[in-house]
Amino acid sequence: MPAFRTRRRVEFRDTDAAGIMHFSMFFIYMEQAEHEFLRSVGLSVLEHDEDGALSWPRVSVACDYRQPLRFEDEFDIDVSISRLGGKSVTYVFRFLRKGQEMAKGQITAVCCEFHSGAPPRSVPIPERITDKLRPFLTS
Amino acid sequence: MPAFRTRRRVEFRDTDAAGIMHFSMFFIYMEQAEHEFLRSVGLSVLEHDEDGALSWPRVSVACDYRQPLRFEDEFDIDVSISRLGGKSVTYVFRFLRKGQEMAKGQITAVCCEFHSGAPPRSVPIPERITDKLRPFLTS
Amino acid sequence: MPAFRTRRRVEFRDTDAAGIMHFSMFFIYMEQAEHEFLRSVGLSVLEHDEDGALSWPRVSVACDYRQPLRFEDEFDIDVSISRLGGKSVTYVFRFLRKGQEMAKGQITAVCCEFHSGAPPRSVPIPERITDKLRPFLTS
Amino acid sequence: MPAFRTRRRVEFRDTDAAGIMHFSMFFIYMEQAEHEFLRSVGLSVLEHDEDGALSWPRVSVACDYRQPLRFEDEFDIDVSISRLGGKSVTYVFRFLRKGQEMAKGQITAVCCEFHSGAPPRSVPIPERITDKLRPFLTS
Repeated sequence: MPAFRTRRRVEFRDTDAAGIMHFSMFFIYMEQAEHEFLRSVGLSVLEHDEDGALSWPRVSVACDYRQPLRFEDEFDIDVSISRLGGKSVTYVFRFLRKGQEMAKGQITAVCCEFHSGAPPRSVPIPERITDKLRPFLTS
Repeated sequence: MPAFRTRRRVEFRDTDAAGIMHFSMFFIYMEQAEHEFLRSVGLSVLEHDEDGALSWPRVSVACDYRQPLRFEDEFDIDVSISRLGGKSVTYVFRFLRKGQEMAKGQITAVCCEFHSGAPPRSVPIPERITDKLRPFLTS
Repeated sequence: MPAFRTRRRVEFRDTDAAGIMHFSMFFIYMEQAEHEFLRSVGLSVLEHDEDGALSWPRVSVACDYRQPLRFEDEFDIDVSISRLGGKSVTYVFRFLRKGQEMAKGQITAVCCEFHSGAPPRSVPIPERITDKLRPFLTS
Repeated sequence: MPAFRTRRRVEFRDTDAAGIMHFSMFFIYMEQAEHEFLRSVGLSVLEHDEDGALSWPRVSVACDYRQPLRFEDEFDIDVSISRLGGKSVTYVFRFLRKGQEMAKGQITAVCCEFHSGAPPRSVPIPERITDKLRPFLTS
C-alpha cells in the first residue's frame, strides 16, 4: 500500500519532438507528488523561519522507464518512503497508467538549513517531521 | 543596429509533440539574452546587497510568431531597448534564423527591491544602471 | 462569466531564485487551461488523422503581471474567447488568487495542418470545432 | 580524459525558490551535452528517414549531487561512454565548477525506431553509429 497516491495528466509542454513525455519531467512530477504528500501530513518542503529556511536538497535521484507516456495520458504517482535516516529521507515513486507501471523513480533528500549568503547545511530532521513521516516507511 | 546579439540552438527539451520549439521557450530565451546583455555591460539581473536583492520583475511581455523553429536550428537573438523610464525598461527581442525574422518579442521590467518576507517594491533605476543602458536605447 | 475556470497550485519548479513564479510559467498554465477547456467541450488541441495532425500554433501571445504568485499559492485561471475568426481564435486568461487578479494574458492560435516534412499550413477552423467554441465568445 | 567537454552557465530559469539550480535541470544539461557530443561526431539524436525516425529513449537515468550550482555560475560538463551494448549506450556526465565536481550523472539510452501510431521499437545500433561512439568508450 503506497503512503500516498496522486493523479496527473501529461500536459502538452511535458512532451518533446519524439511525441512522448520528456524523461526529465518524471522528476518534476516526483517532486510535485512529494510536496503534495508533505502537505497531506501538514508539512511544506520549504519552511521559512526568522533564521532562514529549512528545505530538502536532493543528494541522489534515479529513474527507470518502461513505457512512454503521451500527451493527455492520465497517470497515477504512488509515493512511499523506503528509508528514513537521521538527516535524510528516500522516497520511491511509481508511475502507473491504467494500473500498469510506466516508470519507477527515487529521490534521496537531505534536511538542510538555508541562510542567505551561506551554503546549505545539513541538520538532523526535526522530530516533529520524523514523527509525521515514520508511518509511511514501507519496510 | 541591435544593442546586442547572441546565438542559441534549439535544444531537444525546447520542442514539443508538434515537433517545433514551444512558444513559451521564446520568453526563456529572451530572458537569457537580456541577462547576457546585462552582463556584457557589467550588470546582473539579480544583485544582492546587505538589505536584500535588486531585481527586475516583469510587468508586461508579448511575442509574435512568424515561423516555427525546430530541433537543432541555430538562431540569433537581437536585443535592443525601446523605452527607458524612471523605474522600468522595455526590451525588444528579434529571433532570426539565417537572417530571417522568426519571432519578435518584448519584455517590460520594473526595477524592484526584494526584502525577505515583504512584497517586491518598485524603486527608481539607480543612475549607475541607467548610465549603462541609455546608449542602447533605439529611438 | 468565464467560459471555463480551472484551479492550479504553484509548484516548486515553477519558482525562481527571486522566490516567485517565473513569468514564463503563466504561458504554460494558460496553455494547460486552454487544453482543459477544449477537453471540456470534447476537443483536443492535437488531433491526429491519416493525413497528419491538426493543431493550433500560436501567432501572438501577451501577458500583464500585477502581483507575484509564490510557491504553494493556489490560483484560478478563467478562460474566455475574445475573438473567433475564420482560421484563428483568441483566448483571454485571468489569473486569480482569492478572487484578486494577479495576471491577465492572451493567446491567439491559428488552426493548422501538420504533415511530416512540410511546414504547418493554416486552414479554416472546421465547423464541428467552431460550433463548440462559439458559445464561449464573450462579446 | 573525457570524450567531450562543453560549458554552460546557470540561467535564471534554471533556479528555484531555494536559490539554486533545480535538480531536474541537470538532466536537461546532460541531454544537451549528449546531443552536442553526437553532433561533434556527425550524428543527431533524432534522425528522420522515409520510414519514421530513429531516436534514443532513456531506460535508466541517475544523478548524485555534491554541491549546488547558483545563478550565473559557469560549469563544464564532461561526457564519456561507460558502456556500449548492442542496442543501448550508457553515458556518464560530470558537472564541474572551477574544476571541482558538483554532480555526476548517467543516462542509458536505447536505440529505437519511431513510426507514427506505433510504440517505439528497440533496434540494434547501426554500425555507422557504433563506429563513431566506440572510440569514446572509457573502459
